[in-house]
Amino acid sequence: MAARRRGVAKEIRIWARRTEAVEEARKAGLADKASTELSEVVENASMVVLCTPIPVMADLASKIREHLSSHCVVTDVGSVKGPVVREVSQALGEIRFVGSHPMAGSEKSGLAAARADLFEGATSILTPVEGTDPHALQMVDRFWSALGARTRQVDPGEHDRIMARISHTPHLVASAMVNLVCDEDPTSFNFCGNGFLDTTRVASGSPDLWEEILTANREAVLKSMEAMIRQLERAGEAVRTGEGLWQLLDQAKQGRDNTLKDRNDRD
Amino acid sequence: MAARRRGVAKEIRIWARRTEAVEEARKAGLADKASTELSEVVENASMVVLCTPIPVMADLASKIREHLSSHCVVTDVGSVKGPVVREVSQALGEIRFVGSHPMAGSEKSGLAAARADLFEGATSILTPVEGTDPHALQMVDRFWSALGARTRQVDPGEHDRIMARISHTPHLVASAMVNLVCDEDPTSFNFCGNGFLDTTRVASGSPDLWEEILTANREAVLKSMEAMIRQLERAGEAVRTGEGLWQLLDQAKQGRDNTLKDRNDRD
Repeated sequence: MAARRRGVAKEIRIWARRTEAVEEARKAGLADKASTELSEVVENASMVVLCTPIPVMADLASKIREHLSSHCVVTDVGSVKGPVVREVSQALGEIRFVGSHPMAGSEKSGLAAARADLFEGATSILTPVEGTDPHALQMVDRFWSALGARTRQVDPGEHDRIMARISHTPHLVASAMVNLVCDEDPTSFNFCGNGFLDTTRVASGSPDLWEEILTANREAVLKSMEAMIRQLERAGEAVRTGEGLWQLLDQAKQGRDNTLKDRNDRD
Repeated sequence: MAARRRGVAKEIRIWARRTEAVEEARKAGLADKASTELSEVVENASMVVLCTPIPVMADLASKIREHLSSHCVVTDVGSVKGPVVREVSQALGEIRFVGSHPMAGSEKSGLAAARADLFEGATSILTPVEGTDPHALQMVDRFWSALGARTRQVDPGEHDRIMARISHTPHLVASAMVNLVCDEDPTSFNFCGNGFLDTTRVASGSPDLWEEILTANREAVLKSMEAMIRQLERAGEAVRTGEGLWQLLDQAKQGRDNTLKDRNDRD
């Protein structure tokens, strides 16, 4: 939808596993061609963007490999990059691959939630590794930039550690916060204000998608969750003794206010 | 501002400690009278709303007591009700008091952030106790309803346990989440998307205000923080083993989606 709106490709083709999804894409006029046939869709493509669940990405890559022309560049939109970059690169062999993580989207899913302006002002992270072809990297960079995103480059492993901190752990924490109320006293939900709803918004995301993400990034998530528990123990201790409580709240306020300011200055 | 807009009082008077605040209120035309003199402001009032920090509420109540007429009803807007109701009732002696907690506001503070429609659609919790005068309760109920809020009644102690779960613990958790990034790797902030900013919005609240709230509700907050840490340990274990991870994410999604739905149905 975004690629069509921005006119970044001469021809856009969509592959989907289910015929219903292909029909939906066709009716919405999103592509010049939509099909459940992989070979038809990727044939002669100059660029392929893999947008499937993480666990099936490498398998899909190995299936399209023989149908790709040698000049094709492949990228993906997976939220975890270490295992994806490793496995997809391997599956694609000599075909050039550059991992991407466009940080856009919401807790909603499905074509009804699609927006052509989704990437405008968003950050798209590229994760080149040693041996990544510079022209392929440039092509993927231009693709996301053309959709309105700002690009950043970072090593796949470092990407996963950062995401564990700023996205995967916050997701588990939001889920835990809702489950705390579910388990202790569901009637408390009747008193919830905007604060609680904002704090837990991400917990409304798809359990399927998030199970995949958390599993694919298990190691970094576990480390970050342990650090989060230590932060909560420290916060509990500050409440108990009164010592350092204001400082802890102030550090958090400064940290968030600055992040918001940097972001607003940038936009 | 809301009382004026809705025309709920014949005369509105504002007391503030600082002359600058009184001047600001006067210039904004918010009251018929604004002063730093307590006696002038509360004299002959039919209703007084205490909107000061929790730690000074009881002291203020004892100071106004001698200036209040016997028909006056006092309420407050404190976010913690157990200690406030106990101490303010005692300080006011024979003057009738009903605790309130209008659940409205944002992470911002000051007159610039004031909104006349703040209470529209919000929930205002009233916390009558044994011996609360039913006419006083009705008057406070009508006051919040007139400002557009829905009222609910609950025991002060129960109020504080609920708030520990849905507001005070979420605040500490949001602060801890920001501090995790500050302490582990502040450059991660550069990658933050809307998810992180929403999840941590409340952490931008005033450290002064939140230190007061968390301290006033210490016991319930500590209990709820312990339960939260257990939830995170359970979530970490689910990530480690893969067992129950989807179920945990799904329980949270259902819990939040239902809360949001109930709220939207109500509005």
